[in-house]
Amino acid sequence: MAALLKKIRNLDAVFHPNSIAVIGASREPNKIGHVIVKNFVDGGFGGKIYPINPNAEEILGLRSYKSVLGIKEKVDSAVIAVPAAAVAGVLEECGKKGIKGVVLITGGFSEVGKADEEKKVAAIAEKYGIALIGPNCMGVLTPATRVDSVFLPIYKLGRPRVGKIAFISQSGAVGGCIVDLAARAGIGMSKFVSYGNAAVINECDLLEYLAGDKETEIIVVYLEGVKDGRRLLDAARRITPKKPIVAIKAGKSAAGAEAAKSHTGALAGAAEAYKAAFRQAHVIEAETLEQLFDFAKIFDQPLPRGKRVGIITNGGGMGVLATDSLEAEGLALARLSDATNASLRLSLPAYANVRNPLDIIGDADSHRYEVAINAMMRDGNVDIILLIILFQTAAIDSGVVNIAIRASDLRQKPIIAVCTGGEYTDMHKRIMESYGVPTYASPSSAMRSIARFAEYAAHRAESGKTGKKERK
Amino acid sequence: MAALLKKIRNLDAVFHPNSIAVIGASREPNKIGHVIVKNFVDGGFGGKIYPINPNAEEILGLRSYKSVLGIKEKVDSAVIAVPAAAVAGVLEECGKKGIKGVVLITGGFSEVGKADEEKKVAAIAEKYGIALIGPNCMGVLTPATRVDSVFLPIYKLGRPRVGKIAFISQSGAVGGCIVDLAARAGIGMSKFVSYGNAAVINECDLLEYLAGDKETEIIVVYLEGVKDGRRLLDAARRITPKKPIVAIKAGKSAAGAEAAKSHTGALAGAAEAYKAAFRQAHVIEAETLEQLFDFAKIFDQPLPRGKRVGIITNGGGMGVLATDSLEAEGLALARLSDATNASLRLSLPAYANVRNPLDIIGDADSHRYEVAINAMMRDGNVDIILLIILFQTAAIDSGVVNIAIRASDLRQKPIIAVCTGGEYTDMHKRIMESYGVPTYASPSSAMRSIARFAEYAAHRAESGKTGKKERK
Repeated sequence: MAALLKKIRNLDAVFHPNSIAVIGASREPNKIGHVIVKNFVDGGFGGKIYPINPNAEEILGLRSYKSVLGIKEKVDSAVIAVPAAAVAGVLEECGKKGIKGVVLITGGFSEVGKADEEKKVAAIAEKYGIALIGPNCMGVLTPATRVDSVFLPIYKLGRPRVGKIAFISQSGAVGGCIVDLAARAGIGMSKFVSYGNAAVINECDLLEYLAGDKETEIIVVYLEGVKDGRRLLDAARRITPKKPIVAIKAGKSAAGAEAAKSHTGALAGAAEAYKAAFRQAHVIEAETLEQLFDFAKIFDQPLPRGKRVGIITNGGGMGVLATDSLEAEGLALARLSDATNASLRLSLPAYANVRNPLDIIGDADSHRYEVAINAMMRDGNVDIILLIILFQTAAIDSGVVNIAIRASDLRQKPIIAVCTGGEYTDMHKRIMESYGVPTYASPSSAMRSIARFAEYAAHRAESGKTGKKERK
Repeated sequence: MAALLKKIRNLDAVFHPNSIAVIGASREPNKIGHVIVKNFVDGGFGGKIYPINPNAEEILGLRSYKSVLGIKEKVDSAVIAVPAAAVAGVLEECGKKGIKGVVLITGGFSEVGKADEEKKVAAIAEKYGIALIGPNCMGVLTPATRVDSVFLPIYKLGRPRVGKIAFISQSGAVGGCIVDLAARAGIGMSKFVSYGNAAVINECDLLEYLAGDKETEIIVVYLEGVKDGRRLLDAARRITPKKPIVAIKAGKSAAGAEAAKSHTGALAGAAEAYKAAFRQAHVIEAETLEQLFDFAKIFDQPLPRGKRVGIITNGGGMGVLATDSLEAEGLALARLSDATNASLRLSLPAYANVRNPLDIIGDADSHRYEVAINAMMRDGNVDIILLIILFQTAAIDSGVVNIAIRASDLRQKPIIAVCTGGEYTDMHKRIMESYGVPTYASPSSAMRSIARFAEYAAHRAESGKTGKKERK
């Protein structure tokens, strides 16, 4: 238990090192060991970077070392990207050097049937108490400290801004493409971890670490196989009253489980058991990749007090679709108070139909959105405000983005936006996302996310009442 | 019946006019009547454009007329964007001038309770046999002839390339944002029609017209209320053995129906009745806005002979997710033939696992995709090829796009792509879409679309056998 705690604590060295060694650093631009050094340098990592390569004097302007043992200063962390056969040797050196955190990129272990080699590597890490991530992984990102051992260049895989979502993924490929997607959309992350074969640090260890991580408020997990289902469930049950967990389980179907087995060597399957376990532990389950971040990013907003949604739209048809989805998801259409109705009738043009969904008509400008938002903010019958903004109309410009962000910054009620469209729309969605206003491409995806959000809020309120520890 | 047929035939004047009058043309850049003239001019409309404005001599370099009756030459079509009170008068003039097609943008009729005014307008159109679209609509696009009466500027609402999908939408706002989305994604359209209050031309008339339209191979419909459900069902039943119809019905829920009523004045609801009717008529029903074009664009590919899918991926995790979705959608994982397995074992690296899903591993380049696609093309056990391409990996470049497009151009088997990611990925998705290779953001959205595609193909094959008229 003490060893486990120490290992988890040592993850600090992975995410927040003052110094990092890149073992297998290379002068060749197309080599993984080059891309990683470059990402640390270009990304603006604030600590010391030590390239390790037996045959180079200098890499990207940095002095290169033959071994970590040749470095005089203290080294907190290492990224290893050497051939599989050389891993045990360099890891032993890391242990001797007192390095506490290691990201082992190298593949060629249990995923290709070499479980014994993997055990040998794990034993070295355990001997020295090293928090080792991998092997066969794609690296780690901490946007706040610019730790970036993801071995793909930035033009192919965008890096997200600093945010509150930690994302851990067994699959490097799935993880990578989602990080890229999030970066593009303006969604922020506190951590990204591709944990690969999980020889030492597994999903449970990461959950425990992230539960206590001040930078992380939402945890997103992509799982294929799970080594210790009981521990995962226990950890999740302890964490969800404090931080929401959104998870996707791949390899659910019989055929999918078969595919997963050949992919990571881990056992998958038993979908129904996972489903039930997630439900029990109040883990929010995503059925698709899209839902993973759709569900997670809504938690940038304050938790709602109930499930009554007020809808504001400049396109009547979108209000109809939103109402359909609201009903399908078991949410409630807020009944606007008489005071709200009266004030809206005064402020809105006579041809606007004052009801919920509130259609402020196709000629609505930013000011009309402001009036409508203010009215719903004041109305105690509205728990959540859904803004549908069609940026195609002539009267809408970037001003409405400021209105939405200002309303969101009050942190009184959750503000969620739906914007469907092309380039002009996408640009405005990115701006809103980067200020923490979650945006959705359709009423249905928004309502599905709001439903999970409201359910989680009810769980949190319940946990608080029953005297469980609550945070924030 | 003869009057109805004539009216439908007269839609040719709306979509393919040699000359068009813009009634309510304006010199003011922010006026609808200006934007429409500008769209015709800038878009490169090949015919004559006649701005109509009682107080202007010239608009955008074109001679302006006080009335259509002042034009000496024949005029095929008119767009009307004058205040509601002036509509009857100018429409009467259109009739006298022999104009056959009219797009009536102006709102302020049945949607605001003025059903009588709308009936008056409809009666004028009927008297002259004018195919009138609207009122209260957002206009019409025919990308091939550059007819563009959509009154929103191009930087806000992108115009799609020429393609095979006709999209008709009761709601202008929903229609517009989807057109914008399609334009951005590289999806092509044959026609877009926002038909608004449907005073004269309704969804059934448009379906009948599009059934015979050579430019249209796929029909997409956004419905709120329907005036004549029996006729819609009859028309759909006749059309679907020839052309697929994808439809979304808004106002399904009780609350949604209520919202729809206040929006367009049409009756909505009776969701289950629609669902059953769609199923009977083999209309492909979309549940969300995203599905509308997800389902439609796949028909750019040749119809599959069966539902056995071959999956090629450079990311193992994505193969697992795709297999889960395949099973959930009732599709079959193709069993690769012994010959395919043998040839793949020869051509692929030893560490690639030869099975379906075929994981060609994260270091796969374009050539490896080509080898895999060729093998699946030759294999009689594969009906549909799903390419998962993660553009984040170091070995992937634009070359793979050419491989995918060349394979698609053979028109032997449907090729569908899944690409998840940010900017670099989006660019490549747009290229593939613009060559008719449908792309999806996730395995689940692709599989859902493939399932509808395979079901429709089975229906078509069945219709052919039973001696019903089949086309292509």
